Amino acid sequence: MKREKLLVIGGVAAGAKTAAKARRENQSLDITILSNEDMISYAGCGLPYYIGGVIETEEALKIVKAESFEKVRDIKVELNTEAKDIDPVNKTVAALDLITGENKKYEYDTLVIATGAIPLPLPLPGADLPGIYNLRTVKDSNKIKDAAVKAAAKKGRALVIGSGFIGIETAENLFDMGIETVIVEMKEQILPGFDYDVSLYIRYFMEQKGVQIKTGEMVTGFAALENERLKVSLRDSDDIDVDFVVSAAGVKANSGIAEKCGIKTGIAGAIKVDDNFETNIRDIFAVGDCVEMKNRITGKECWVPLGSTANKMGRIMAEKRFGGSSEVFPGVLGTMIIKVFEMTAGKTGLTERDAEAAGYDYDTVIVPGNDSAGYYPGFKEIITKLIYEKKSGRVLGGQVFGWGVVDKPVDILVTAISFNATIFDLSNLDLAYAPPFSNAMASTIASSNTGRNKLTGRVKTIHPVDLFSAEKNKNITILDIRTDDEVAEWSIPGSIHIENTYLAERIGELDKKKEYAVLCRRGIRAYNAYKILEKAGFEKIAVLSGGTVFSSHFWEKLRQDTVLKKSLPKGK
Amino acid sequence: MKREKLLVIGGVAAGAKTAAKARRENQSLDITILSNEDMISYAGCGLPYYIGGVIETEEALKIVKAESFEKVRDIKVELNTEAKDIDPVNKTVAALDLITGENKKYEYDTLVIATGAIPLPLPLPGADLPGIYNLRTVKDSNKIKDAAVKAAAKKGRALVIGSGFIGIETAENLFDMGIETVIVEMKEQILPGFDYDVSLYIRYFMEQKGVQIKTGEMVTGFAALENERLKVSLRDSDDIDVDFVVSAAGVKANSGIAEKCGIKTGIAGAIKVDDNFETNIRDIFAVGDCVEMKNRITGKECWVPLGSTANKMGRIMAEKRFGGSSEVFPGVLGTMIIKVFEMTAGKTGLTERDAEAAGYDYDTVIVPGNDSAGYYPGFKEIITKLIYEKKSGRVLGGQVFGWGVVDKPVDILVTAISFNATIFDLSNLDLAYAPPFSNAMASTIASSNTGRNKLTGRVKTIHPVDLFSAEKNKNITILDIRTDDEVAEWSIPGSIHIENTYLAERIGELDKKKEYAVLCRRGIRAYNAYKILEKAGFEKIAVLSGGTVFSSHFWEKLRQDTVLKKSLPKGK
Repeated sequence: MKREKLLVIGGVAAGAKTAAKARRENQSLDITILSNEDMISYAGCGLPYYIGGVIETEEALKIVKAESFEKVRDIKVELNTEAKDIDPVNKTVAALDLITGENKKYEYDTLVIATGAIPLPLPLPGADLPGIYNLRTVKDSNKIKDAAVKAAAKKGRALVIGSGFIGIETAENLFDMGIETVIVEMKEQILPGFDYDVSLYIRYFMEQKGVQIKTGEMVTGFAALENERLKVSLRDSDDIDVDFVVSAAGVKANSGIAEKCGIKTGIAGAIKVDDNFETNIRDIFAVGDCVEMKNRITGKECWVPLGSTANKMGRIMAEKRFGGSSEVFPGVLGTMIIKVFEMTAGKTGLTERDAEAAGYDYDTVIVPGNDSAGYYPGFKEIITKLIYEKKSGRVLGGQVFGWGVVDKPVDILVTAISFNATIFDLSNLDLAYAPPFSNAMASTIASSNTGRNKLTGRVKTIHPVDLFSAEKNKNITILDIRTDDEVAEWSIPGSIHIENTYLAERIGELDKKKEYAVLCRRGIRAYNAYKILEKAGFEKIAVLSGGTVFSSHFWEKLRQDTVLKKSLPKGK
Repeated sequence: MKREKLLVIGGVAAGAKTAAKARRENQSLDITILSNEDMISYAGCGLPYYIGGVIETEEALKIVKAESFEKVRDIKVELNTEAKDIDPVNKTVAALDLITGENKKYEYDTLVIATGAIPLPLPLPGADLPGIYNLRTVKDSNKIKDAAVKAAAKKGRALVIGSGFIGIETAENLFDMGIETVIVEMKEQILPGFDYDVSLYIRYFMEQKGVQIKTGEMVTGFAALENERLKVSLRDSDDIDVDFVVSAAGVKANSGIAEKCGIKTGIAGAIKVDDNFETNIRDIFAVGDCVEMKNRITGKECWVPLGSTANKMGRIMAEKRFGGSSEVFPGVLGTMIIKVFEMTAGKTGLTERDAEAAGYDYDTVIVPGNDSAGYYPGFKEIITKLIYEKKSGRVLGGQVFGWGVVDKPVDILVTAISFNATIFDLSNLDLAYAPPFSNAMASTIASSNTGRNKLTGRVKTIHPVDLFSAEKNKNITILDIRTDDEVAEWSIPGSIHIENTYLAERIGELDKKKEYAVLCRRGIRAYNAYKILEKAGFEKIAVLSGGTVFSSHFWEKLRQDTVLKKSLPKGK
């Protein structure tokens, strides 16, 4: 009996998962993985940490070894074998043995393309000089590691192009090795997955650490210097000399082989698939980073290549094709999380920019809180930004950032948004509470309560950026109601100070016709003060979003970026 | 104009929250809190950690001070004032000043009872001897702290009666002070909120640490010894001498004053309220630990007194009564979390016991996993037990325990269960993934996948307890497919060992007519082996739930408890 043939191109996350799951679904399948690398099933997301030595050995990155796939799972693994052409008529794949140069041919009954993503090319003069690296494979990371160790030894300098997740993680790891690290980002903000205000908060923290960041800037070329160094030309600033360059200027789907045989692609070249992960060509499927997906909120196509999603796709594809499951992958929320030195930033769902683009009438709150009980040692501050639809209160997205635990509140939001939760739903979740793990009012609940208060007209808030914007801020006075000690530590120039305990008796000092933004540390005292002012007949009042926890951190930076540029950044 | 009067009895969590929220809703209200303690708004859940010195000062426990309530919020706080009688006709409360002995009377338009919970009395001979303490107030904890410091100095011994959360947390704190600590629990297991198997896992860990635990045992009396020590008599074991006793034998609602005036109560004396938190007597409301609530899954009455729930109740009650909100509190899931030395255990939703009692046809999986990427330094193991309805796959409950991060997966389950999620929904959540925070397949997703595989007939599993049970285990052989090194470290007596890489070639050594339980470390290799055996025609096979991660930890203990007692514990 001829065994049914499953051929998988690519063996990192989605490819390896598909093959392993297919084997469990069907012990008779003849399964082969083609990989153009010398290993499969490795931790691509761990590469920046491998460079920095946080992950110590290459061995540690290998999740499952090729030998184990062959021995335990009876899956043939063809390493160093690059798939070149698909022949959908004869159902074969032509490949090249990268070691011997031999041309090979593989038959399939089912073909799965799991070729992942590849770095965007740098179409710049000198881009092919030695010392300029991409970071996508273990091989890449070994080269960068070598360059970094050398640079660290002489306290050298590195340039990272791009400030997405890989760029920021790489910059952190290089900086921690003692290398002077410069990031150049084309966009006006780092971490484009986040809103502008959140990214600025993180940027300021990184700059305080010592990382140099240039946004709205472009590399225009490279030239070789002596000592194997490189001269990097920039569009708007002086040239800089560096020891090496890591290009993390973005990725696109690695779909060349698919396109060549007539398979349709979409965003960033990602392959279009149906609910079975089948492409427009029968019996050819695609999973993982090379595939376009659906946003769960908007229902629109998107492309968020991530190992976690790749694993899900592999499982579902194999279960449907070989196990008769009828499940439909519901899509993604664009969830992301990144460690930035001692800080963490995570997001899920829509940013303000996304919500605007999708046409939602939305509002936001920015609410500082603790990650565990404020009276239990070791608690840390985090800030939650919620984005919700005004009409329904439906949560559209969330961004959580700060020094404490961020992944938990992000995953609570992920789960809630997956079920179309409103901020009202959020505020009644029976979340786990004990002093070492949470406040009695968890940060997610506290922030949703602020959203409720705003949505139901109980309070108005104003975002620092709105306060700064030249058109609006000319008449707004900041009323700082913190204690003398707090004000002495940091305050906003030009603000009025009346400590909250004296507000009722000193309310006569304020002018009911004037516009005030009430400021405290986190917003709770300001909310109480707001209600006192409201009762006293003040009409043009608002609580300053995020309190000093948010603002003090980067007030001057934010002011420069908004007032001085005379423009309101999107996604504030 | 006469101001509308809000009178609140009790000022810890729910009472303080109600008053503060009522003030924000209505600046004209005349608000008074009566407290029979000398402070309000303190962190009741922090008391065990205050005893152990983890929380260093009494001051740190005070979340908001009485002075601040008076000054900032214009809320009168009557400390040391015990409410004695409610007169619903004249709308007054009679109270006693605990300092002066003076009788007082307070009027109300709205009365809120937030009297919390009180310890169950110990109706035992000698229970009033000095050195026997309850733990509910800051005063209590100061007494215990004094006794503990003295006992620690002479390497003394303490008895904790009861093994609920307060009992276990207190025992941990005393043990960490260097005190020999004995727990006596009436029930057959510690931590009755968890299933038997999970509680046994934690119990074994505590015993390894050195805490002495007696379950199914009762204290029958106390007698004074010299040196201020106490002799404790037990029903089934020898007397023990201790330096002091903490009674954490359970709590009931503090609803005496409510019952006296005709207010209806239910479970554990908890006050029955409607959707407005109003009792059966008009204008008298109740919130917090003294109130009965609804289980979100079963819709039945329950009583789970917790500070997190108390805060929600206070907010909603005040918003509805004074702010015109129409929100209905959806109830609780019985979520709990506890730190037990380096281990954490959390649960939400129904246990097996609960699911059985509620009449669900349910199934369970026990799945070990990592809390972050297995290749990123510092990851730790956790175990997830999921309970789901067989027909629909609806998640009914989850218990997560182990050395790693547990609060995150518990809160994901809380959120999912609140929206009636199925295990299929769980497995597709776009949870936050980056190596420092999660596996590409988060533990929640991995465990739901195991549930899916079981529910869809892809694999069978067997629980160790079922394996042990005398009726069932006589024909089951354990097939251990781990490596030689792993087997050398620990193995189950009588098991057969064939390493998974050789299973296909050595399959002839096994007997197709026999019954096998396949064992590996976590279950993944065993699942692959199961599929190989299935294909080869083996019919009576199952994967041993939880692998050696679960079993090796307490195999002998579990065997003794189940086989030797010849009974299958409920909620296994």
